[in-house]
Amino acid sequence: MSKEITSRAADYSQWYNDLVIKGELADYSAVRGCMVIKPYGYALWENMRDALDKMFKDTGHVNAYFPLFVPKSLFEAEEKNAEGFAKECAIVTHYRLKADPNNKGKLIVDPEAKLEEELVVRPTSEAIIWSTYKGWIQSYRDLPLLINQWANVVRWEMRTRLFLRTAEFLWQEGHTAHATREEAVIETEKMLDVYADFVENWMAVPVIKGVKTPNERFAGAEDTYCIEALMQDGKALQAGTSHFLGQNFAKAFDVKFSDKENKLDYVWATSWGVSTRLVGALVMAHSDDQGLILPPRIAPLQVVIVPIYKGEEQKAVVDKAVKEIMDNLKRLGIRVKYDDNDNARPGWKFAEHEMKGVPVRLALGARDLEKNEVEVARRDTKEKKTVSLEGIAQYIDGLLLEIQDYMYKKALAYREEHISSANTWDEFVKLLDEKGGFVSAHWDGTGETEDAIKEKTKATIRCIPLNNPPEAGQCILTGKPSTQRVLFARAY
Amino acid sequence: MSKEITSRAADYSQWYNDLVIKGELADYSAVRGCMVIKPYGYALWENMRDALDKMFKDTGHVNAYFPLFVPKSLFEAEEKNAEGFAKECAIVTHYRLKADPNNKGKLIVDPEAKLEEELVVRPTSEAIIWSTYKGWIQSYRDLPLLINQWANVVRWEMRTRLFLRTAEFLWQEGHTAHATREEAVIETEKMLDVYADFVENWMAVPVIKGVKTPNERFAGAEDTYCIEALMQDGKALQAGTSHFLGQNFAKAFDVKFSDKENKLDYVWATSWGVSTRLVGALVMAHSDDQGLILPPRIAPLQVVIVPIYKGEEQKAVVDKAVKEIMDNLKRLGIRVKYDDNDNARPGWKFAEHEMKGVPVRLALGARDLEKNEVEVARRDTKEKKTVSLEGIAQYIDGLLLEIQDYMYKKALAYREEHISSANTWDEFVKLLDEKGGFVSAHWDGTGETEDAIKEKTKATIRCIPLNNPPEAGQCILTGKPSTQRVLFARAY
Repeated sequence: MSKEITSRAADYSQWYNDLVIKGELADYSAVRGCMVIKPYGYALWENMRDALDKMFKDTGHVNAYFPLFVPKSLFEAEEKNAEGFAKECAIVTHYRLKADPNNKGKLIVDPEAKLEEELVVRPTSEAIIWSTYKGWIQSYRDLPLLINQWANVVRWEMRTRLFLRTAEFLWQEGHTAHATREEAVIETEKMLDVYADFVENWMAVPVIKGVKTPNERFAGAEDTYCIEALMQDGKALQAGTSHFLGQNFAKAFDVKFSDKENKLDYVWATSWGVSTRLVGALVMAHSDDQGLILPPRIAPLQVVIVPIYKGEEQKAVVDKAVKEIMDNLKRLGIRVKYDDNDNARPGWKFAEHEMKGVPVRLALGARDLEKNEVEVARRDTKEKKTVSLEGIAQYIDGLLLEIQDYMYKKALAYREEHISSANTWDEFVKLLDEKGGFVSAHWDGTGETEDAIKEKTKATIRCIPLNNPPEAGQCILTGKPSTQRVLFARAY
Repeated sequence: MSKEITSRAADYSQWYNDLVIKGELADYSAVRGCMVIKPYGYALWENMRDALDKMFKDTGHVNAYFPLFVPKSLFEAEEKNAEGFAKECAIVTHYRLKADPNNKGKLIVDPEAKLEEELVVRPTSEAIIWSTYKGWIQSYRDLPLLINQWANVVRWEMRTRLFLRTAEFLWQEGHTAHATREEAVIETEKMLDVYADFVENWMAVPVIKGVKTPNERFAGAEDTYCIEALMQDGKALQAGTSHFLGQNFAKAFDVKFSDKENKLDYVWATSWGVSTRLVGALVMAHSDDQGLILPPRIAPLQVVIVPIYKGEEQKAVVDKAVKEIMDNLKRLGIRVKYDDNDNARPGWKFAEHEMKGVPVRLALGARDLEKNEVEVARRDTKEKKTVSLEGIAQYIDGLLLEIQDYMYKKALAYREEHISSANTWDEFVKLLDEKGGFVSAHWDGTGETEDAIKEKTKATIRCIPLNNPPEAGQCILTGKPSTQRVLFARAY
């Protein structure tokens, strides 16, 4: 069979690529580092996007749209932010092509159409948005401004991976403006909670909430909050970030407001984002060597029904029964497909739906109908069961919830098993090399030590967990005093 | 009042800009020719997008996402298409900025980060999509491919107008692949019908369906179908296009399929799109000198309720009654807002909601409550009426339908009044200059004559209407024989 995939044990990285390509989530494109999101992958992203969008709106945010391009002079206004992204920006320098005089039918960039000022394709939109907010904010009455944008962004990464790191990706970026520091911090934390809620309850992936060290902060932020997830190979993945930006952007773009006492002050800011990278996290957190395993709440298809029959007559009987089952499932809002493609055998279809991670498969034949039964197969546990057709829709509805819950608990158990404590350097290295996962260890709090640990082990500090208990100890590398443990891991 | 707007009679073009800006649909940006779509405008676009997206899915299409960038060598593969867009393309030539050695804190394009091959920011996606389809299509079993994409595109226009013509805009582009010419033509026409259905029944704007002359065709199409709408100043606006692309792109990108007899042939193609330009059409088709008038089906807010009260005690009584009305309206799926902002008087609020085109306004005071009544004001006709609170939600529900219907009929009556026939050149010019609208006239069928007419009058052939009756006559300009009338107009 052409769709065989590499096993995790043989080559985890190839396994991931196989799943994305053969599961029809995405494809490589003719553009370096850019991917094509295929219809099945896009349907998954749409479900994720719609769930998040509703959560944003329920917490008082509205959507808007800002330009793709950032004039260089605006881009460089907030220096740290500019420095952080300058090395990976696509730059528009010209606005016209013309016929190549030496090569009929070919085009060249028209040197006469050079832009006076170059345009940066947005790698993130703080600059263009804060230059706009300047015109929108005068008084405390204009605050808070709670705006989100769904958009494409471009970061010219040298080493790319489908979904995980691509030159262009889709994301949402929230950009809020507040009258006080306190309110902005509350917003930053609220959106981190929204992300954690979404990733855990929709994607069934447990996360650890924390803050980044200064080294790992978003360029231009005073504090970067994050949620960190664990993949099946023991590597961590940053699943979302929420930044408290202080007054940095307000100062760079001169955005002031007059408060109730008519006193002028700079506005306080946050920004927060998640991207199509989450699709990569989803794939790596749950899937197995047979293919994708998608959580029911966001799976494009939740149930597939495969008919088992010989001849037209049996088919007609099965069709009729399936129609009724489908109607009942749809009435409960369940996304179901009848795979009655005549050109493929049931076994081929089973493998195909396993590859694509459809949570529940029903196989229904004439003999089952006689017994008023149907075979129900779970994708996650591979369990098969014969179930009465009486009340089958309610049964499936409950089963989807059970699968969602089971997937989360399984991922959580794996994660819990893979948080270890290290008290010596040898222990630390051994855990990273042999077990993987998060290693909780003492660190002396300096960026230099963090860099040195990264250099020696490729592990980074994923976060300082929220509500981290204070604990006196010695830095794993330098032996200098430390007041708390932090979470290290190798990461995507 | 600061929000006064220019009247249509005084300056139609300024009136339009005032509406877009003061109605808070969009704003100018720091990037030449690009706009910011503000939250209210974006909510309107979301409603339009969601309605269209459902119509696409109901007709069997799925969404996907293709790269923003098109390598120059792909871009130039379909020569006519490339030639049509080459003059207005944003070109990415570099992928990095670096610190300016002569200017601390500033950045310059890093000359060492020049791309080997320039990237065109997509002005439309046929090239990148058909280069991808080549890998997806082998056999007739892979067809039809019915894919749509929601995306931003960039066309470097020299003269821009908010929504109507911007360098970057949001749109959808459908790209389908078929086994036969006939099937592709049917698809082209089907999507034109979907567009007409949407623009007429959701936007309440009547359209004329037709085909473009060769001069006005999409670059690379064999046939361009269009829907044409009429604005209140008598100018036409192309509201959507659906292209039959023949085998042009399949040949340019070598996309062949084997049919049931195992014979190889090039694939047949269509593409079709509508954009944020439709928001401009909506504004210009319906609004008046007091502000926007939005059709209920896509209005971000359908009903606003303004309380009339003196003191906290009256307010509490009104609040309670409003809560019940809101609950009943929401139960019917009506988008309603309670504007109980304490800082503004009712008169100011009335003007604000008129500016923003909210279809229905309720004003409710303590005295109304005593009589169990409420004042209902329609935005479209400005009619006010006192209505019993008994069954008010059902009344509003019906009223919204009535407004939707009335807006369409009003626009249709205006359009019908502005289709005239001209039989001589003088008549033709006089109609264009004095009455505006569509002028139905004979044309000799040549591109040269079409150009000459455009040169002399600024009018273009908007379309040859579908099912146009044959009629022998003489060309309005050259007197040469003609077999049918076509529709001319000055246009956006």
